[in-house]
Amino acid sequence: MCRWVAYSGNPVPLEMLLFQTKHSLIDQSVYSHLGATTTNGDGFGIGWYGRHDEIPYLYRCVNPAWSDRNLREAARAIHAPLFLAHVRSATDTPVQETNCHPFRHGRWLFVHNGLIRDYHLVRRDLMLAVGAELFTSIEGSTDSELMFFLALTYGLETDPVAALERMVAVVEETGRRHGVEQPVNMTVCATDGEQLVAVRYSSEAQSRSLFHSTSFRCLRKLYPDNPRITAVGEDAFLVLSEPLSDLPGVWEEVPERMAIVAKRGDITKQCFNPHLP
Amino acid sequence: MCRWVAYSGNPVPLEMLLFQTKHSLIDQSVYSHLGATTTNGDGFGIGWYGRHDEIPYLYRCVNPAWSDRNLREAARAIHAPLFLAHVRSATDTPVQETNCHPFRHGRWLFVHNGLIRDYHLVRRDLMLAVGAELFTSIEGSTDSELMFFLALTYGLETDPVAALERMVAVVEETGRRHGVEQPVNMTVCATDGEQLVAVRYSSEAQSRSLFHSTSFRCLRKLYPDNPRITAVGEDAFLVLSEPLSDLPGVWEEVPERMAIVAKRGDITKQCFNPHLP
Amino acid sequence: MCRWVAYSGNPVPLEMLLFQTKHSLIDQSVYSHLGATTTNGDGFGIGWYGRHDEIPYLYRCVNPAWSDRNLREAARAIHAPLFLAHVRSATDTPVQETNCHPFRHGRWLFVHNGLIRDYHLVRRDLMLAVGAELFTSIEGSTDSELMFFLALTYGLETDPVAALERMVAVVEETGRRHGVEQPVNMTVCATDGEQLVAVRYSSEAQSRSLFHSTSFRCLRKLYPDNPRITAVGEDAFLVLSEPLSDLPGVWEEVPERMAIVAKRGDITKQCFNPHLP
Amino acid sequence: MCRWVAYSGNPVPLEMLLFQTKHSLIDQSVYSHLGATTTNGDGFGIGWYGRHDEIPYLYRCVNPAWSDRNLREAARAIHAPLFLAHVRSATDTPVQETNCHPFRHGRWLFVHNGLIRDYHLVRRDLMLAVGAELFTSIEGSTDSELMFFLALTYGLETDPVAALERMVAVVEETGRRHGVEQPVNMTVCATDGEQLVAVRYSSEAQSRSLFHSTSFRCLRKLYPDNPRITAVGEDAFLVLSEPLSDLPGVWEEVPERMAIVAKRGDITKQCFNPHLP
Repeated sequence: MCRWVAYSGNPVPLEMLLFQTKHSLIDQSVYSHLGATTTNGDGFGIGWYGRHDEIPYLYRCVNPAWSDRNLREAARAIHAPLFLAHVRSATDTPVQETNCHPFRHGRWLFVHNGLIRDYHLVRRDLMLAVGAELFTSIEGSTDSELMFFLALTYGLETDPVAALERMVAVVEETGRRHGVEQPVNMTVCATDGEQLVAVRYSSEAQSRSLFHSTSFRCLRKLYPDNPRITAVGEDAFLVLSEPLSDLPGVWEEVPERMAIVAKRGDITKQCFNPHLP
Repeated sequence: MCRWVAYSGNPVPLEMLLFQTKHSLIDQSVYSHLGATTTNGDGFGIGWYGRHDEIPYLYRCVNPAWSDRNLREAARAIHAPLFLAHVRSATDTPVQETNCHPFRHGRWLFVHNGLIRDYHLVRRDLMLAVGAELFTSIEGSTDSELMFFLALTYGLETDPVAALERMVAVVEETGRRHGVEQPVNMTVCATDGEQLVAVRYSSEAQSRSLFHSTSFRCLRKLYPDNPRITAVGEDAFLVLSEPLSDLPGVWEEVPERMAIVAKRGDITKQCFNPHLP
Repeated sequence: MCRWVAYSGNPVPLEMLLFQTKHSLIDQSVYSHLGATTTNGDGFGIGWYGRHDEIPYLYRCVNPAWSDRNLREAARAIHAPLFLAHVRSATDTPVQETNCHPFRHGRWLFVHNGLIRDYHLVRRDLMLAVGAELFTSIEGSTDSELMFFLALTYGLETDPVAALERMVAVVEETGRRHGVEQPVNMTVCATDGEQLVAVRYSSEAQSRSLFHSTSFRCLRKLYPDNPRITAVGEDAFLVLSEPLSDLPGVWEEVPERMAIVAKRGDITKQCFNPHLP
Repeated sequence: MCRWVAYSGNPVPLEMLLFQTKHSLIDQSVYSHLGATTTNGDGFGIGWYGRHDEIPYLYRCVNPAWSDRNLREAARAIHAPLFLAHVRSATDTPVQETNCHPFRHGRWLFVHNGLIRDYHLVRRDLMLAVGAELFTSIEGSTDSELMFFLALTYGLETDPVAALERMVAVVEETGRRHGVEQPVNMTVCATDGEQLVAVRYSSEAQSRSLFHSTSFRCLRKLYPDNPRITAVGEDAFLVLSEPLSDLPGVWEEVPERMAIVAKRGDITKQCFNPHLP
């Protein structure tokens, strides 16, 4: 189990959202309210975008987020128009940097909360399903990274929602072939720096918690004096595991089996229907 | 805030007490019931005694205890007749090995739960009070290690309870001189491999939780089929921050302002009265 | 590139061989004489055997061996009749515990020095060759661990030298299929706690350095006053990447394409001839 | 023993100087040519300046610089007009973040290469000499950090060269009082983001190596097509432990007992004469 947050909007210092909010992600690392586990202390990661022609940057570390001094420095130093942050609670796989989210491939980043159930039963079959040219880029041992590489195999870079639907269908089909009844539980976010794609889905339709921000254009009218709302801009968009509690009224739960795509203020929702490639 | 356990008895594998009990110390690292903080994920340490002529051994690490694989191996490999184990929740000082308990000097080990309040106000004065020949052995930056070196300065190796009383008196006197009303809150344990000395004390008489085991001779009669009770032997003694919950009826709370000295089955209690050296 | 040592003999504290010898493995971690790289600072590991019915113990860590305080403590605390120790110099795969040697499966331990050339070209094919029931136990991302799991697939536990020969043949065949001319360079050691199996082999017949001890029975007569030679006993056997320099005359180079099996004083050598399973 | 580099000039990505040069600092971490030790693998640190009103940023880590992936990411992400970088080879004090350079106080950063000889003899006296209001900010246990806090005590923020002279005089006087003949060996750099102050000094007049760049204005004329020389700008200045070897003719050795102050292209040198405050 894990917790994560994704942000798109005006370039702001990461600390504004990661440290200076109530019930921020860092707070969730030590005391999650809605997560399957209270503590998310098995490493963390941030991924962010700089100039348009560069691959995104990563800082991933096995320390708990709450005590890592370098994270605090980084969150103060980095101003980014789009970033992902993740705190991990390991499910059976080792605490090591290559198992920390976000995962990266080219311009794409990926974070996951949830699990592939009975992963040991399906790991080999799913690894074989990864494209041969992508296979060698798998560095860690998590179900999450494997989901990312499966999605890449099925076209994440060209049609992200469809690729994620295919990935889930393959995981579910593989799991059921091995007798796993509810193979997938996930909230995920994938981005190429232009669009944020977030999905809430589970085989049993009881997915991990996920929320998104409502219109910051409206929020700005409601709270004209809130410096953070001003700073993030009218097109800002957040999707996250647990609401930041100092902005009540901002958050809306993402429904089950739903995908959201955010692209510079345009937010579209669509049903998420896994189907085999 | 931290949690700790001290054991004296037959040589048993550390895992028997650290991993295989209900609400073990490792469980307390991720979900403490009685601690000032729920999570104690800022490093851990174990200290144990082997042959009589050797200084005790340490394994201290900044990882959370719950995910450290080497700790699991060590707890399986090490059989010891006396050991201390500690999980840390840092209060303002960095997460680094030299701040992990137990601290060691010669044959002595020391663990602490609690704090010196407004430590930044009194740190310099207290460091000056450490014996000049001991000063250079201070490696970390915690209030806990400093308490240990003050106690060593005041005679821990010859009269441990009196030395701890003097140490607390000096910390209280120094704190009050700087306007701190309740300077000390502590449960501590010191040992030289022969005797375990545990103290529960705080300036405000509301100390961190501390429990000790009752007679294992009696327990053995009550639970003749319990393999763990048999394994630890009739002279076994435990003192710990939180009871192991699979042995109800075994644990007794250590009263406020009390010192316990355990030496091969002989348990003596005495009032703990800080007084200046 | 890495350096390693394997010991079988009387139970001795690991520090006797890892720290207290001249040009010990710890010294080789910071200043190797014969290795492909001078520095072997990308983590280390020790594996040792205790009671006969237990799986061996591991301590693996990403720190450089020369500065890890816990290793120094462990080497003082552990007395073992058989152990492996390894210092790593990473070749392209991440510095993480799951990439540190020794690797373990059941009662078997494995260390490797060298590489599978153009590993990224052959990794997928070689992973597919691992037995499906073993596949899920692969935790890291090194060529070394994969060699171990291939050897296990081909019968390491029943006929170790033959299994290693098959493993090498498969790696060479796979490499050449992908255009790699000299696919393998290795010295390896595998053990189940009873026998030590060491091999020096490379496709190009220019393998990493490897040495073994000559008869400690003779050594004892030559150096009757040497306490270390007395301590390890007449049946002691060492195989290691670089000689301990304070015992000149003790070491013999393992020839190219040679396997050595040591079992309580019985040392047998045989040619190492890779052939497909 | 350590190695360091300080840069002032146009904002450039740190990787340009830390990774993309020949015999860069990262190369020196694994294979130093001129250092007292070949390997500088006991942690590293970078410190850099962003906006004028903010305290500088730090990234310090106990990993060897050569294998830290986050350092590589950071060096790609960070563009700074002034930065310090340091790779550490520990002399007796633990490998921990609080012992990694640069040290920071307010707007000031500090790096050191060398040592206070017989530090254990003088540590207590020197700590007592630190201003009481600064004392509590000492976090680690190195001689280097202590030199920084002594210099701060003696006025580093207002008259940096004089403060460093006083600091050295106090260390020498204290050392000699304890029978240490050559108490200090150092190259240091201190900066507030505006000026770089570098000193080469040792009691025995055989200091660690130190070099500085000559005029980039001239270099630009000599190498009009070198993109790095163009990128750093005409006012660029570097001072570093070992020359970057792909720019021959650029480097000049800093003489013994010399201080250099660089402030936006103005470089002044002066003799360094320790004298007691």
